[in-house]
Amino acid sequence: MTSRFVVHYRIFASSRDEAAERAAGIALEQTVEIPRDVVPRGYIEDEIVGRIESLAEEDEGRHLARISYSPDSVGAELPQLLNVMFGNSSIQKGIKVVGLDLGATLAERFPGARFGVDGVRRRAGRPAGGLIAPVIKPQGSDADTLAGIAYRCALAGADVVKDDHGLTDQAMAPFRTRCEKVASAVARANRETGGSCLYFPNLAGRSDDLMDFAGFARDCGAGGVLVIPGLFGFDLIRRLAADETFDLPIMAHPSFLGSSVLSDTFGFTHGMMFGVLQRLAGADISIFPNVGGRFGFSAAECLDIAGACRDPAGVGRRIFPSPGGGMSVERAGDMKQMYGDDVVFLLGGSLLRYGDRIGEAITAMRSALRAANGRAQSEPAD
Amino acid sequence: MTSRFVVHYRIFASSRDEAAERAAGIALEQTVEIPRDVVPRGYIEDEIVGRIESLAEEDEGRHLARISYSPDSVGAELPQLLNVMFGNSSIQKGIKVVGLDLGATLAERFPGARFGVDGVRRRAGRPAGGLIAPVIKPQGSDADTLAGIAYRCALAGADVVKDDHGLTDQAMAPFRTRCEKVASAVARANRETGGSCLYFPNLAGRSDDLMDFAGFARDCGAGGVLVIPGLFGFDLIRRLAADETFDLPIMAHPSFLGSSVLSDTFGFTHGMMFGVLQRLAGADISIFPNVGGRFGFSAAECLDIAGACRDPAGVGRRIFPSPGGGMSVERAGDMKQMYGDDVVFLLGGSLLRYGDRIGEAITAMRSALRAANGRAQSEPAD
Repeated sequence: MTSRFVVHYRIFASSRDEAAERAAGIALEQTVEIPRDVVPRGYIEDEIVGRIESLAEEDEGRHLARISYSPDSVGAELPQLLNVMFGNSSIQKGIKVVGLDLGATLAERFPGARFGVDGVRRRAGRPAGGLIAPVIKPQGSDADTLAGIAYRCALAGADVVKDDHGLTDQAMAPFRTRCEKVASAVARANRETGGSCLYFPNLAGRSDDLMDFAGFARDCGAGGVLVIPGLFGFDLIRRLAADETFDLPIMAHPSFLGSSVLSDTFGFTHGMMFGVLQRLAGADISIFPNVGGRFGFSAAECLDIAGACRDPAGVGRRIFPSPGGGMSVERAGDMKQMYGDDVVFLLGGSLLRYGDRIGEAITAMRSALRAANGRAQSEPAD
Repeated sequence: MTSRFVVHYRIFASSRDEAAERAAGIALEQTVEIPRDVVPRGYIEDEIVGRIESLAEEDEGRHLARISYSPDSVGAELPQLLNVMFGNSSIQKGIKVVGLDLGATLAERFPGARFGVDGVRRRAGRPAGGLIAPVIKPQGSDADTLAGIAYRCALAGADVVKDDHGLTDQAMAPFRTRCEKVASAVARANRETGGSCLYFPNLAGRSDDLMDFAGFARDCGAGGVLVIPGLFGFDLIRRLAADETFDLPIMAHPSFLGSSVLSDTFGFTHGMMFGVLQRLAGADISIFPNVGGRFGFSAAECLDIAGACRDPAGVGRRIFPSPGGGMSVERAGDMKQMYGDDVVFLLGGSLLRYGDRIGEAITAMRSALRAANGRAQSEPAD
């Protein structure tokens, strides 16, 4: 007996009748894509066509439709799960995906993250507290320069050092050269400190090369990889997470996915896109633009993402939200207050201001997080 | 000497100063992603950082910024070209990509469609006039049923028979089984008619399998493939188009890409997403929802797409726009008037109303298009 999965759609419609009509349209659109009156009887009508499980008015003009689909529509294919969830309906205004109940059948087929919060903590040797993840950049630098920055960050106690998402396979620092040099620099720092800083190269270039690059990264001693699902598809994450021989954590980057969350009336909620879908694919860490930076995400939207990443009832293991930008020594207390402990703080371009003294910025951030932790622990529990 | 490529951004800002500041922000964001004052001197500052070539007010609150980038930022990687064009800026409101000048250097690296309008016409044996492309469905049908529909469509003179984009590798009609049976049914019809109807299976499933599926499709005698870049990444199209051994036309489907065009103030214009980006990737036919169907695209938006697909000054070969939905015998004249000759008309779910007499719908459509053509030719030229 298979259990159907349920997608929650917010439908913007002026009346309940209109909402019901749109919901019925979604149930067809996302499955058989033919008019209701020509749907073949039997299996297709009974099992394949989407089924409206409930429809309720949330607010004036806003309705919540829960539509269930058959696991048979999906098989064990992540792209097809996304296709059924929102493929053609993504092209219609007034429909926003706000939730997903995966159900037992698909939960078995999509196990989620291989590492999750606990697994990444073990690999990084950081059993508690926020992780600090400086980014090496800028694009145009050669591999030795980038390796030098990574070395100084790792030496100062960074938990993760990641490539900028604009470092791909360009001639200035091709993937293999960069990966080898940076991984080696980070390993050297780890030997000196006894730490276990993880280097995440950006797994990017031509799609033909990516699986070879992934194996190369693993053989170089990389501690994980950065992946951009908006450019390469979410299934690249699923494929890597499922690969026993790869066995490294995956950090997802939001590049090219922005349009899917910027509207209140279409696309996905922030939590769905940067929490639920990332967990479904198998990411261990999900990057998103932090509140207060140069992107316009609100605190509520960021917390929606963090909540979706860490919800114990979500898909597979709990994963790390990773707010990028807006982090500084001065804000460390606020950020700790906002996100709690299970968080990977990305430290971006402003770090470069420190030049050769970049390590001092990492150390200062660690102290600030520890101090915030001390304050938090001395506060009375509520 | 390399020539820079130029991306045209529409920036929504209340003053010229604000627009200039945002443009400067884009030039950094899309390249070095560090504050201006820490950009390293020399190559990175001179070559890599985006350069504002012009900034002009289009209208109250709307400004057009033309920002140029170095081909070095991109290498020969399509995902990275998209990343530089709009990766992080996709996450900001008030920035819309409205144009692209590829420049000579990248034009060599991204040759575009292998077939284009002329190549597809040769393969389909249809030197002039609109192409007719019925879709086989619904999901849940077995391969024999789908092959039967395809056979009747091909026998009646369809130019292309394509899989519904919801047919992937599910158990009801797995890719290989379906591909073999449908390709064989279409070949049988072609032998009977002397025609050359092309079957386009939907190249979907797990990403690990896609290149094997593509080879299998070619070996079965498929006439092309359907690809969903929103789910698998645009680089799958590029990879197939560049593959000498594959050598089949590619039809792109818009599933999951909707959010990128639905807003006036962020994302891409319709012509950019469903014309320019598809040509850049190497698609030969670009599907989009036709005006008057259940999606809300306007006639102007559809013509923007058709224009971008067929602009002789665009990237690589001219390709076919392929409006889906909204086509009927009654509307054939209007559609011919609107789109002209170089168009692939998708005929969707309503065809199934005809049941075993589906061929009659194809024949009627062909007659209606021919009649419209006769009328068009007898009209005085302007």
